[in-house]
Amino acid sequence: MSGLDWIAADWGTSHLRVWGLAGDKIIRDAASDQGMAQLARTDYEAALLALVSDWLPEGRITQVLASGMVGSRQGWVEAPYRTLPCPPLGGALALAPVRDLRLSVHVVPGLKQHKPADVMRGEETQVAGYLALHPNWDGVICLPGTHSKWVHVSAGEVVSFQTFLTGEIFALLSEHSVLRHSVSGWNDAGFADGLAQGMERPERLLARLFAIRAEGLLDGLDPATARARLSGLLIGAELAAAKPYWLGQRVAILGAAELAKYYATALEGLSVPTTLHDLTEISLAGLAAARTLLPEGQRRCVN
Amino acid sequence: MSGLDWIAADWGTSHLRVWGLAGDKIIRDAASDQGMAQLARTDYEAALLALVSDWLPEGRITQVLASGMVGSRQGWVEAPYRTLPCPPLGGALALAPVRDLRLSVHVVPGLKQHKPADVMRGEETQVAGYLALHPNWDGVICLPGTHSKWVHVSAGEVVSFQTFLTGEIFALLSEHSVLRHSVSGWNDAGFADGLAQGMERPERLLARLFAIRAEGLLDGLDPATARARLSGLLIGAELAAAKPYWLGQRVAILGAAELAKYYATALEGLSVPTTLHDLTEISLAGLAAARTLLPEGQRRCVN
Repeated sequence: MSGLDWIAADWGTSHLRVWGLAGDKIIRDAASDQGMAQLARTDYEAALLALVSDWLPEGRITQVLASGMVGSRQGWVEAPYRTLPCPPLGGALALAPVRDLRLSVHVVPGLKQHKPADVMRGEETQVAGYLALHPNWDGVICLPGTHSKWVHVSAGEVVSFQTFLTGEIFALLSEHSVLRHSVSGWNDAGFADGLAQGMERPERLLARLFAIRAEGLLDGLDPATARARLSGLLIGAELAAAKPYWLGQRVAILGAAELAKYYATALEGLSVPTTLHDLTEISLAGLAAARTLLPEGQRRCVN
Repeated sequence: MSGLDWIAADWGTSHLRVWGLAGDKIIRDAASDQGMAQLARTDYEAALLALVSDWLPEGRITQVLASGMVGSRQGWVEAPYRTLPCPPLGGALALAPVRDLRLSVHVVPGLKQHKPADVMRGEETQVAGYLALHPNWDGVICLPGTHSKWVHVSAGEVVSFQTFLTGEIFALLSEHSVLRHSVSGWNDAGFADGLAQGMERPERLLARLFAIRAEGLLDGLDPATARARLSGLLIGAELAAAKPYWLGQRVAILGAAELAKYYATALEGLSVPTTLHDLTEISLAGLAAARTLLPEGQRRCVN
C-alpha cells in the first residue's frame, strides 16, 4: 500500500481494530472479533495478519503500535503495568514476538494503582490521546464500557482511577439472568427513572433488580422501559459511588456514542459539565503519542 | 408401593424433588434436574412420571401436591398469585392436566405484593411449613438462595416481603464474568472481610467487584479468599438493604445448609438472633398443610 507509515491497533478482550496511517491520516481500517478471549499466545500474529497482510509493503518493516488486553499476561506479550501517579504513557513498550519479516509490533503498557487495587489496559492510551488533543487539561475522564473507568488527571499525570463492573453486569443480567425475558429495547423515561433510583438508594440495587421482573409479571412493565431502567439503576449506582470523582469537576466522556450520551445525560442532570469525544480520533491520537516513545529511526517504515 | 398416601413435589426452575409419603412419613424420595427451565407445558407429566411411576398403585388415584415455578404462567398449570396480606396458603389449588389415570396433581399458588412489586412461588409453602411446625410464631423468615427472600410474618399472615437477586448475581459473576478466573474455593476470613465491606458501603459494590480481579492480578489475592469475599460483598449489600426486615427481629433462616450458615454468621454478627431449619422437613410440612386445602375425600389415594 503506497504511503503507509505505520499501523495503529486497538486490541481488547473481544475485538481487534486496526488503522493504516500515512502520518496521522487514516488510509485503511479493518476490524475483527479476534480479541484476547479468542486467542492463544501463538495466534496473535495470524489474527493481525488476517487484517493487515495486504497492506504491508514488501522488503521493509512496518511498525504496529497496539494497546489493550493484547499486552496482558494472557496476551501476545506482557507489557508490565506502570505504577501511579505517572503520565498515561511512558517507559518501555513491549516488543511482541513476530515471524513475518514485514512487521514489528510494540505494545503499550497498562497502569496499576495499589490502594485501592485497580488496573487498566487500553484506557491509558485513550487518556493520552485526549491529553494530546487537549494539552494542559486537568479534570476527570470517564470511560464508560464493560468495565467503566473514572480517571483523575492533573498536570499531565494520572493521579487515581476507579473501575466499575457496570457494563459487564448489565450484559450478564440482560442476557443470562431471570431478567432476560423482561428486557428489550430502550425508553428514555425508563432510564431516567432507574437512574434516580440507583443514585438515591444504591444500596437497594439487588432488590430493585428483581423488582424489574416482578413489575413485568404484575404490572405489565414494558420490556423497553425495563431494559432502560436496568441500565439506569446500574449507571446510577456507579455515579453514586463515583461522586468523589465528578463532584465539582468537569468530565470528558470517552466511550461508544450511545453509551457516552447516557452518561452525559446523567451527569448533566447533576450539573456536572461534560464533553463527548470521538473514540476513534482519541484512540489514534493516543497510539500516535505512544509511537513517539519509539527511537526516532523506528517510527516509520524501516527499509 | 404399599402404604403410599400421597406425593409431595418441590418443583422449581432448575430442579424437581419428590417424596412418597405414608401419612407424614417419607417412604420414598427422588430428584431430577427437570425444572421449569427445561420443560415445555406438555413435558411436565412425563418428567414427574419418570420419578414416581413405579411408586403408583394401579386402580386408584394418588394425589400429588406441588409447589414452585411449576405453577407459573410458563409452568404445568398457572396457579394465579394470591395478594398480600394473607396466610401463606389458601384459596384454590390449581389442577394440572394429567393423562395417567393413577395421578391427580394440584399446584400451590404463589404470592404477590404490589408496592413494591414482588412475587414468590415455592417460598410461600416453606413459610407455611415453618408456621405449621411453629404455631403462633411472629417474626421474619429469611430464605437465602438464587432469589433470596425476606418475609415478615405476623398473626399467621405474610405482611410483606422483598426479593434480592443475590444468589443469581453470585453465580453469574463467579462463572461467567471477568472474575471467573479469580475465584475458586472458600475462606471464612474472606467472607467476613467482604461482608463488612458490603454492609458498610453497599453503594461501592460495582467498584469492589472489579477490585477482586485487580487484587488477584496485583497482590496475588488467593482464589478462595476472592470467592468468599465476592459472596460476602453481595450478602453484605443484601443485609444492608434488608435492615428494615431484620432490625430488632428474630430471624428464622430456611435455606441450603451451607448458605444458611453464612447468613446466620452474618446476622449473629449484627446481634440478630437466628435459627436454622432443615429445608426438607419444612417443605414437607408446607405441602402437607397445602394438602389440607383439598376436600377431605381427595387427601388420600382415591379408589
